Amino acid sequence: MLSRLANRTSDITPFYVMELLSRAKQLERQGRDIIHMEVGEPDFATPQTIVDAGIKQLQTGVIKYTPAAGLTELRQKIADFYQRHYSVVVDKERIFATPGASGAFLLALAASMNPGDELLMADPCYPCNSNFIRLFEGKAKKLPVDATTRYQLTAELLKQHWSQATKGAVIASPSNPTGTLIEPDVFKQCIELVNDKGGCFYSDEIYHGLVYGKNAPTALEYSNDVFVINSFSKYFGMTGWRVGWLVVPDAFVETTEKLAQNIFIATSTLSQYAALAAFDQSTLAELEIRRAEFTARRDFLYAALVHLGFEIPVKPDGAFYIYANCAKFTDDSYQLALDLLEAEGVAITPGKDFGSHLAHQHLRFAYTTSIERMAVAMQRLERFINQI
Amino acid sequence: MLSRLANRTSDITPFYVMELLSRAKQLERQGRDIIHMEVGEPDFATPQTIVDAGIKQLQTGVIKYTPAAGLTELRQKIADFYQRHYSVVVDKERIFATPGASGAFLLALAASMNPGDELLMADPCYPCNSNFIRLFEGKAKKLPVDATTRYQLTAELLKQHWSQATKGAVIASPSNPTGTLIEPDVFKQCIELVNDKGGCFYSDEIYHGLVYGKNAPTALEYSNDVFVINSFSKYFGMTGWRVGWLVVPDAFVETTEKLAQNIFIATSTLSQYAALAAFDQSTLAELEIRRAEFTARRDFLYAALVHLGFEIPVKPDGAFYIYANCAKFTDDSYQLALDLLEAEGVAITPGKDFGSHLAHQHLRFAYTTSIERMAVAMQRLERFINQI
Repeated sequence: MLSRLANRTSDITPFYVMELLSRAKQLERQGRDIIHMEVGEPDFATPQTIVDAGIKQLQTGVIKYTPAAGLTELRQKIADFYQRHYSVVVDKERIFATPGASGAFLLALAASMNPGDELLMADPCYPCNSNFIRLFEGKAKKLPVDATTRYQLTAELLKQHWSQATKGAVIASPSNPTGTLIEPDVFKQCIELVNDKGGCFYSDEIYHGLVYGKNAPTALEYSNDVFVINSFSKYFGMTGWRVGWLVVPDAFVETTEKLAQNIFIATSTLSQYAALAAFDQSTLAELEIRRAEFTARRDFLYAALVHLGFEIPVKPDGAFYIYANCAKFTDDSYQLALDLLEAEGVAITPGKDFGSHLAHQHLRFAYTTSIERMAVAMQRLERFINQI
Repeated sequence: MLSRLANRTSDITPFYVMELLSRAKQLERQGRDIIHMEVGEPDFATPQTIVDAGIKQLQTGVIKYTPAAGLTELRQKIADFYQRHYSVVVDKERIFATPGASGAFLLALAASMNPGDELLMADPCYPCNSNFIRLFEGKAKKLPVDATTRYQLTAELLKQHWSQATKGAVIASPSNPTGTLIEPDVFKQCIELVNDKGGCFYSDEIYHGLVYGKNAPTALEYSNDVFVINSFSKYFGMTGWRVGWLVVPDAFVETTEKLAQNIFIATSTLSQYAALAAFDQSTLAELEIRRAEFTARRDFLYAALVHLGFEIPVKPDGAFYIYANCAKFTDDSYQLALDLLEAEGVAITPGKDFGSHLAHQHLRFAYTTSIERMAVAMQRLERFINQI
């Protein structure tokens, strides 16, 4: 029976954190107080303006298929957002509404990647991105990065590792798990290099908006010849709605539409109607308040972890993660995460969910919970490491 | 630039009907009255009970990620439905909520199909099914079928065409575009043959519930070693919600969960909560009234088309399609569809959207509009063919 499993499935890794999460839930059922700092989902609810837009559409009772590329009105609003927020002009024909950033990645790779093609990406990185590549019989060539490059790729790295098999590069900025931004000039150089090579550049911008004290440029500021993956999940607080978007180069518009018809038929109608309210001034005002809260959380958690002896050589700029080096305490971060959960009821994500480069010396802390709860978590963590 | 398109994209066909649909919309904007019989989407709105369940969940404001496999409560309700409706016991662990039947197919093939694997399927069939196979570098081996087998595969056909490269078979019953059911004993033989060969059997059951005067058995009545693809879109009237489900063999449960985590993260939360109301007695009562209406529509359209001289050698049992042979009028059904739209404002789907076997002699009529409107369409069609 087992032999019927597709070969790719043995290369696609499960999320180790799921085992941890499942144990955390078990402990909660036993009455234990668990502080969740493992989850990549903000504790904030979807903004009321977006919920209200959903209710309004539901009350019409009309939840039919939308065009495969998405509601024209939503695509236009996204185009307007690029103009207003980044001062770049993006034709709405290049913008596709997708079932989350997952759907956007799926579509971009289905459109552009052949079996055997290699994509260059950073290690550590978000695991699904490389698993999508494997799904289409490609190969993620993960380049170890560290604090010296803000855990981001550089044009030099791309140049050095570019081979006959290389199809392109993926850059996620802000990065999950490190929260670091790529420097604008390095970003530009990377895009130019990939463009010069005639490759495909995939920019994962799903944490845009969740950037603190800086601005994250979009790849579209430097080139029209890029794929941009974005989402309403994180900054806009719409995780469970499963709606994101993909921007493609002109040459891929027709093909992407054909693939969207076949792969999805369409993205959830209701989620698209709700997302129409995402760019309203009142929504953005609320999201900016949340951003201030995330900034405070980041500052709190960063200081607390450094105080406890974790090494965080680059202060993260965005997302809601801190990727901390725990080599001072252990050489097996997964075991530490399991033990911490058992002993103190604090759930965090082991480094090995994000790659192999020094993964066993790293832990990802998500500040998706309140400062009050994180303060308790830090007390517990202090007690725990004092006993190591 | 063009060379960067993935090779698969040149093999994945667009829907020809989209061109027709786009012309139909253009004509509508010019004030023409278009009767839509091309669309695979019922004219009925989502049942109010389901809409209300959606509104209720929205009012909680909590639209967070669900587990990758779906809401436990929804998976249990689907399992209960199998027990109640088909008298088969299906462990809820084998059931995955998916972004529509599209997501279910994607997941099933990602889990089971290697590059180069062949899947046997009927020609004509729903085009996305074979395009999904191409997406994962497999090959759809389409076997021409006709009225003598109710446009369905048989165990003899499978046996005859099974080769070293064959991984399994796909059967859709009721079929799109033909609306025909496979005979229960033939269905059982096909499943047994694929099981004996150690292959994978994929049963597309998305039109279950929309069957008139008969019952469609599920593949799960004959074997637990099958993939079943189903959806809330058609019978349950939830097209735009993008929620369906996949049942997998025991041996695929763990792998399917891992893939779902990576490919989707999760299915739309709201759509899953709304779908919890799909199996309520009050919902089912309303759906049964609609089924009666579809039965009347089928009977009307079948009689009208036969009267006009179309050949329909097997009266369709289900879905909302009639696949009519138009060889009496043309040898180019696509041109006929285009001309009919221009001349009379009736939109139908050309056979070539469903394969190549005698496709140019066939047209698909969807009875997704009222008998009143179809009566007008038939008058127009009569006038049109009288001028051929």
